[in-house]
Amino acid sequence: MNTFGNIYRLTSFGESHGAAVGGVVDGMPAGVPIDVDYIQRALDRRRPGQSALTTPRREADRVELLSGVMDGLSTGMPIGFLVRNENQRSRDYSELRDVYRPSHADFTYQQKYGLRDYRGGGRQSARETIARVVGGALASLVLRSHGIEIRAYTSQIGRASMEGGYRWYDEEAIESSVVRCPEPEKSREMEDEVKAALKDGDSVGGVVSCIIRGCPVGLGEPVFGKFHAALAAAEMSVNAVRGFEIGEGFRSSAMRGSAFNDPFVSDPDGRIHTATNHNGGVLGGITDGEDVTFRVAFKPVPTIRHEQDTVDLSGHSVRLSAHGRHDPCVVARAVPIVEAMAAMVTLDYLLLSRTVRP
Amino acid sequence: MNTFGNIYRLTSFGESHGAAVGGVVDGMPAGVPIDVDYIQRALDRRRPGQSALTTPRREADRVELLSGVMDGLSTGMPIGFLVRNENQRSRDYSELRDVYRPSHADFTYQQKYGLRDYRGGGRQSARETIARVVGGALASLVLRSHGIEIRAYTSQIGRASMEGGYRWYDEEAIESSVVRCPEPEKSREMEDEVKAALKDGDSVGGVVSCIIRGCPVGLGEPVFGKFHAALAAAEMSVNAVRGFEIGEGFRSSAMRGSAFNDPFVSDPDGRIHTATNHNGGVLGGITDGEDVTFRVAFKPVPTIRHEQDTVDLSGHSVRLSAHGRHDPCVVARAVPIVEAMAAMVTLDYLLLSRTVRP
Amino acid sequence: MNTFGNIYRLTSFGESHGAAVGGVVDGMPAGVPIDVDYIQRALDRRRPGQSALTTPRREADRVELLSGVMDGLSTGMPIGFLVRNENQRSRDYSELRDVYRPSHADFTYQQKYGLRDYRGGGRQSARETIARVVGGALASLVLRSHGIEIRAYTSQIGRASMEGGYRWYDEEAIESSVVRCPEPEKSREMEDEVKAALKDGDSVGGVVSCIIRGCPVGLGEPVFGKFHAALAAAEMSVNAVRGFEIGEGFRSSAMRGSAFNDPFVSDPDGRIHTATNHNGGVLGGITDGEDVTFRVAFKPVPTIRHEQDTVDLSGHSVRLSAHGRHDPCVVARAVPIVEAMAAMVTLDYLLLSRTVRP
Amino acid sequence: MNTFGNIYRLTSFGESHGAAVGGVVDGMPAGVPIDVDYIQRALDRRRPGQSALTTPRREADRVELLSGVMDGLSTGMPIGFLVRNENQRSRDYSELRDVYRPSHADFTYQQKYGLRDYRGGGRQSARETIARVVGGALASLVLRSHGIEIRAYTSQIGRASMEGGYRWYDEEAIESSVVRCPEPEKSREMEDEVKAALKDGDSVGGVVSCIIRGCPVGLGEPVFGKFHAALAAAEMSVNAVRGFEIGEGFRSSAMRGSAFNDPFVSDPDGRIHTATNHNGGVLGGITDGEDVTFRVAFKPVPTIRHEQDTVDLSGHSVRLSAHGRHDPCVVARAVPIVEAMAAMVTLDYLLLSRTVRP
Repeated sequence: MNTFGNIYRLTSFGESHGAAVGGVVDGMPAGVPIDVDYIQRALDRRRPGQSALTTPRREADRVELLSGVMDGLSTGMPIGFLVRNENQRSRDYSELRDVYRPSHADFTYQQKYGLRDYRGGGRQSARETIARVVGGALASLVLRSHGIEIRAYTSQIGRASMEGGYRWYDEEAIESSVVRCPEPEKSREMEDEVKAALKDGDSVGGVVSCIIRGCPVGLGEPVFGKFHAALAAAEMSVNAVRGFEIGEGFRSSAMRGSAFNDPFVSDPDGRIHTATNHNGGVLGGITDGEDVTFRVAFKPVPTIRHEQDTVDLSGHSVRLSAHGRHDPCVVARAVPIVEAMAAMVTLDYLLLSRTVRP
Repeated sequence: MNTFGNIYRLTSFGESHGAAVGGVVDGMPAGVPIDVDYIQRALDRRRPGQSALTTPRREADRVELLSGVMDGLSTGMPIGFLVRNENQRSRDYSELRDVYRPSHADFTYQQKYGLRDYRGGGRQSARETIARVVGGALASLVLRSHGIEIRAYTSQIGRASMEGGYRWYDEEAIESSVVRCPEPEKSREMEDEVKAALKDGDSVGGVVSCIIRGCPVGLGEPVFGKFHAALAAAEMSVNAVRGFEIGEGFRSSAMRGSAFNDPFVSDPDGRIHTATNHNGGVLGGITDGEDVTFRVAFKPVPTIRHEQDTVDLSGHSVRLSAHGRHDPCVVARAVPIVEAMAAMVTLDYLLLSRTVRP
Repeated sequence: MNTFGNIYRLTSFGESHGAAVGGVVDGMPAGVPIDVDYIQRALDRRRPGQSALTTPRREADRVELLSGVMDGLSTGMPIGFLVRNENQRSRDYSELRDVYRPSHADFTYQQKYGLRDYRGGGRQSARETIARVVGGALASLVLRSHGIEIRAYTSQIGRASMEGGYRWYDEEAIESSVVRCPEPEKSREMEDEVKAALKDGDSVGGVVSCIIRGCPVGLGEPVFGKFHAALAAAEMSVNAVRGFEIGEGFRSSAMRGSAFNDPFVSDPDGRIHTATNHNGGVLGGITDGEDVTFRVAFKPVPTIRHEQDTVDLSGHSVRLSAHGRHDPCVVARAVPIVEAMAAMVTLDYLLLSRTVRP
Repeated sequence: MNTFGNIYRLTSFGESHGAAVGGVVDGMPAGVPIDVDYIQRALDRRRPGQSALTTPRREADRVELLSGVMDGLSTGMPIGFLVRNENQRSRDYSELRDVYRPSHADFTYQQKYGLRDYRGGGRQSARETIARVVGGALASLVLRSHGIEIRAYTSQIGRASMEGGYRWYDEEAIESSVVRCPEPEKSREMEDEVKAALKDGDSVGGVVSCIIRGCPVGLGEPVFGKFHAALAAAEMSVNAVRGFEIGEGFRSSAMRGSAFNDPFVSDPDGRIHTATNHNGGVLGGITDGEDVTFRVAFKPVPTIRHEQDTVDLSGHSVRLSAHGRHDPCVVARAVPIVEAMAAMVTLDYLLLSRTVRP
């Protein structure tokens, strides 16, 4: 279950305190120029230590591509890659060995597997998302050649929330915000939410909004392979995600059909599209050519300095307060991960869509 | 992409106006008593024509099991099944052949496949969910023997919404409500929403809440196979679903970690559980033994009597008003479908969970 | 595990003495004219009762397509189908319930599942191959439009064996032989083998040779998805198959590279092909445009009138002699099944091959 | 298609002249002591340069496990691993860039992907099998704890062939032979075949026989997932393999049922087994508790010093003679690879077999 996708597939491996994290991208089309700098920049965007608001760790996180590329082109063979874990402090994790951190996977891993990697987050560490970002960056190299772009941004942190619906923002507007919120005033409100949580030794959740622009009509499969079902599985598999909605999402539950339905209209050039986009670019599970719009909800990260009640492996009550480095809010760093998952799903379904005609 | 699941798998087929809808359940454990009446009752719950609020069609929808059962027991072999489409009126669907109904899959199917079954909903018809319900009922027969129960109910229709969080209701409380809302006063408000929509020739959306009770600790896989990611894919694949959230879901985005985290505590008998359940019974993608709680958002059904703007296959503007029989709200009928998808995911992961020890 | 294929997929169900055998073909390309007579003729070829040499059962075996076809064209939706089991004699199978027939799956099913369908062959019955033949016939409808043809014939029965390598025979030459051996003299020798076995209350094995003609260069995937590995899995999954070889197969083990290697040459029109075809049309797991040639070995069918030693469920020794209707040799009837499996693999890989370019 | 298996899965990557070959083992059960020396010894067995008969390359081929192991135990998380390609000579491969080597995958890769890695064997290199051997060794660590052992040996090289059927040999008898033939006289004959081929600048094929001992009854799935079908796919996917047979295999085609069928008998202790084993330990696709016996045919390796006719990329005739280091016979080195594939299939089906009971 560490493989994701149908035709374009990512298999990932690695824990925070093992030798490396990495993966294998299978199904990469052949003949694509592989821009390693592009991949590295994508990785840099998810890297901690990017601002005063995030964890002060400094990790180089240089990706090494091990196969599948020759003379700068993909060969169609699997692309193995890894990022070494360079910053493994020799600190003592034994205090975590015997305690179940609230909202963490300690308890469930221990019960399921009979043992767990208690050093840092183990397989549950956010370092696992490195593989997702590499897989997404490689997919994006193909998508760009088809005119498909993906852009995500932070639309809520704690009680600070952007108004209105999905909007396509310039990359600079997003990246210039320390929380990746493209509206400066809202960005400041969100920063305040993060700072307040940091000050209180606490953490805070948020929402990432994402748009896939330029999708051709026809991605997605009827019934179980609906495009938005695959997107939901992809995004829900990211650490700390608790909700997914396409287009109007939960708001559609309160709506009437007459207000929700998107009327079809014709362009002057004869192209059919919809006048509104409450469906979020997907009809019957298949992309309709409009922007695919979706939102992803993140819970507050579980690790807080705040003292908490919990139990040890024997079930005895203990009090726990986290030490060390922790983001009070992962939402800004999650933005490139949300994009990466969307990129992999989109390429996978783009390739699949070629198999429906004789 | 008409197959769902890993070990316990449903492959479905059928359109609203073909000969039959049906499917194949593969991976059914051997030696399970197969209660055909139980399966039929599950089907009856999703059947239209149950009340004045739903479509007046009368379909017998008798399921026939074709294989995989001998002397009343499952044999471990695939269970083929079908339900004949008995109520195919010989009505003229040609008016739908040339027009794209707003919010329907007409346009995307036509573009993707070059043709589409324009008779009724085709493969997009809600009759497709018959296969899901049969697959879910067979799964439930196994889950019950493990003490696992699944219960869903309508928690919102239009502007009428239940307060508070998830709650386990008696089946009778749910089934005695025509909208499957177990709180009588809220049920009446929801009925009013449906009736108002019906009167206006309109439709209305809603939310189904669901609880999986009795899950052992350990269902779900790290990274891409998280239990709630699989649940999300399952539920998002149901017609008209637009959003999914686990536990607190989108509400967690506004929360602090100190409020969200679920403290571990020990029972007097030594069993470890959590004092609260904001995580919805899943930690790190693996069930923690608490109730698995989730909510599913449905958009208003696209077919309305209300006249709408759209285009025909040539892109010319036309006005469309639906005739015939249509539910103004599918949420009540969706309750057993939400349960069925949850049952299949749960059994699939229960079987998978046996493979992690040497 | 009752689903076969990646993109073009067959899910099958059914036992010899249940209500029906059937399946679901998923991934059928859209817009293909569906010639039901063609499918029925394919079924008729596998049907028992075709000659004095085969079992005298008469089964109509009419296939019913339940979905996925409209106005004579495939819609891209799954094609559910079934064939009713009309000839289930009400005979008493209780004598088989308590005994393990030698070379049958009775013992392994009983041990694995804790029970088994002891009526006739259960899921192990040759009737299961009905689904394969339907899946293969539908695939062939697509392959024919690409100029790909598949032809198999009996090349050995018992000690009677054709000389020389693979050869493309006219369909009439094959079908006019009661054992489906296209060389009349060899056909008579093979018939004698079957008659001798029949007379002795015994059975006899054989070999089917098969050619896939017109494959484009490029079907197959490196490493685990090699074209001949997929073919091998497909053919080895057929009842009674014990061996598979591609091209020269086992004979290549005794050969030198200088004799085995197929030199590349150019046609006058510039097309590159090979002067010989010891590799059987597959290089590195990928079709090279030459005929794909392979052979499939069948063991003698286990059910014989000859008295045999075996044990009952308690392990006590018993003597067993089969009554009723049994083919002494299934090889002739296996010819269309070998073709069907090849057709499904070929179409699956043809569709997959479209996904390797950006 | 670079992933193999259902529950226990190997994803592999790497070319002969890239940075590394490696893979990810997913589904490794948790809590298994990981003996890295055992894995390394398995790798050493497949390594070239082991004798005067094999290529004189010296490659350290040290495996590095990157994840999934803590304190010497598997954690249930994916095990990423790699072996660096240390011996990449900076030699000029440009002469291979423009020519299609006979019996190689040059032509098919170039046509399928539009480009190919022409340095050495690229993805077709035998170095790819490193990942298979690591995956097989990890599987064997689990199988040993269940009392399951796998042993393969060379039973034919060129015209030198062992007589009689399958036999279980001591590991020392096999490993003390330079061709891995456990019978000294036959070993000498086989060595002579290899030496003669070497002297002639030629290559020669062979057969590997393999036994899986200690399999419980019940591994394998009916219909498409038959145990021997999965084995066939596994072994046929190995470079240069051209044929697979289970038990008597192709010999069974000439046999009568009365001679072929394996009578069931009871042990004094009541255990049911078969008096003979012509079926090779598999009945109806499911292991019956007897030795699983199979044979794998290898063609002569394509690269020979002997001058050969071929064409260049433009289709012009050229003469080619290979330089450099080449095994005249890969069969001895293939023995551990045959075992590795069998180990992965066996563990995969062992884990799967736990899912058939409620």
